Amino acid sequence: MTSLPAPVSELTAALGRLPGIGPRSAERLALYLVQSEAGFVRQLAEALVHARERVTNCERCGALTESQPCPICGDERRDGTLLCVVERPLDIVSLEKSGTYRGRYHSLGGKLSPLNGVGPDDLRIAELERRLTEEGVKEVILALGSDVEGDATSHYLAKRLTSAGLRVSRIAQGLPAGSGLEFADEVTLSRALEGRREFL
Amino acid sequence: MTSLPAPVSELTAALGRLPGIGPRSAERLALYLVQSEAGFVRQLAEALVHARERVTNCERCGALTESQPCPICGDERRDGTLLCVVERPLDIVSLEKSGTYRGRYHSLGGKLSPLNGVGPDDLRIAELERRLTEEGVKEVILALGSDVEGDATSHYLAKRLTSAGLRVSRIAQGLPAGSGLEFADEVTLSRALEGRREFL
Repeated sequence: MTSLPAPVSELTAALGRLPGIGPRSAERLALYLVQSEAGFVRQLAEALVHARERVTNCERCGALTESQPCPICGDERRDGTLLCVVERPLDIVSLEKSGTYRGRYHSLGGKLSPLNGVGPDDLRIAELERRLTEEGVKEVILALGSDVEGDATSHYLAKRLTSAGLRVSRIAQGLPAGSGLEFADEVTLSRALEGRREFL
Repeated sequence: MTSLPAPVSELTAALGRLPGIGPRSAERLALYLVQSEAGFVRQLAEALVHARERVTNCERCGALTESQPCPICGDERRDGTLLCVVERPLDIVSLEKSGTYRGRYHSLGGKLSPLNGVGPDDLRIAELERRLTEEGVKEVILALGSDVEGDATSHYLAKRLTSAGLRVSRIAQGLPAGSGLEFADEVTLSRALEGRREFL
């Protein structure tokens, strides 16, 4: 017999379904919440529903957005000849944080994964090809993960996206910034060696 | 400029106020939530508000409860002559999990902390004394923390709660279960030595 009131157990169960929150953290959070200011709890609940209802994917690039098209697709100062292909909308957020890219994006909505039944038709590749011609893209930058499936997807796309005058590049793989060689695995190091560039 | 839609930033801010959730986890959770099933998000929001609205403190012992009195205070099979004093309602949950205690509880709502302006009148000590006589308590078990303030509160209560025929005991301090001596600090070890019991 547990002495937790049922609503606390239900909240614990719901919180425990979130990524990175185990049963103990979920319970700790639930107990914190039932004892915290009612106004804050209501605000959190409203923020949840509000965010889920208002935020959708940009019909053009797939980014998370409140408006159609998203602010990036709608920004005329962005370089429309550069298109960066990512797996998921969240990757756009990560790349934007780096603050160095001024082109547009295209989220595939996943990566090729034959084992999970994800083939080319399940990804937004046809939409990508349509954009290439409609928007006059000159360079496609593949910014997919460096795992096996990301690699396979990159190779597939590089092969498929061959049209006159289109460059297809891929983001570099190598040592993460601020890290030492002792923390890098062999694959990372061999790719860092392969991708070496002349010291200017 | 961040490319996160405003509702996601607002949700991130609200989640970041929860204990143990830093800015990065909060953002990760917010991004997960806006892309997860709408039904789940609504259910989580409802569980939050429901739990906060339905769960209060037992007027007698202070435990978290949906009903007055709480199931523990209302359980006639519980031993009413044993009263375990804890700091917070959550401590009752922890003790109940151990499954070995069959008496009742009393949450003080804190511990003496002169630096934070918490004196005896700010704790539920008068209520505790009233219960001692009204409920015919024979033994008070002090189950407060073993930090300085918990110690001080235990000593204060042990001194104050002297009435005819009342035993006041304190839970043992020593090595945590499943731990080795190399992980225990000096204070824990000296208390474990002090509290040694004859091997039966």
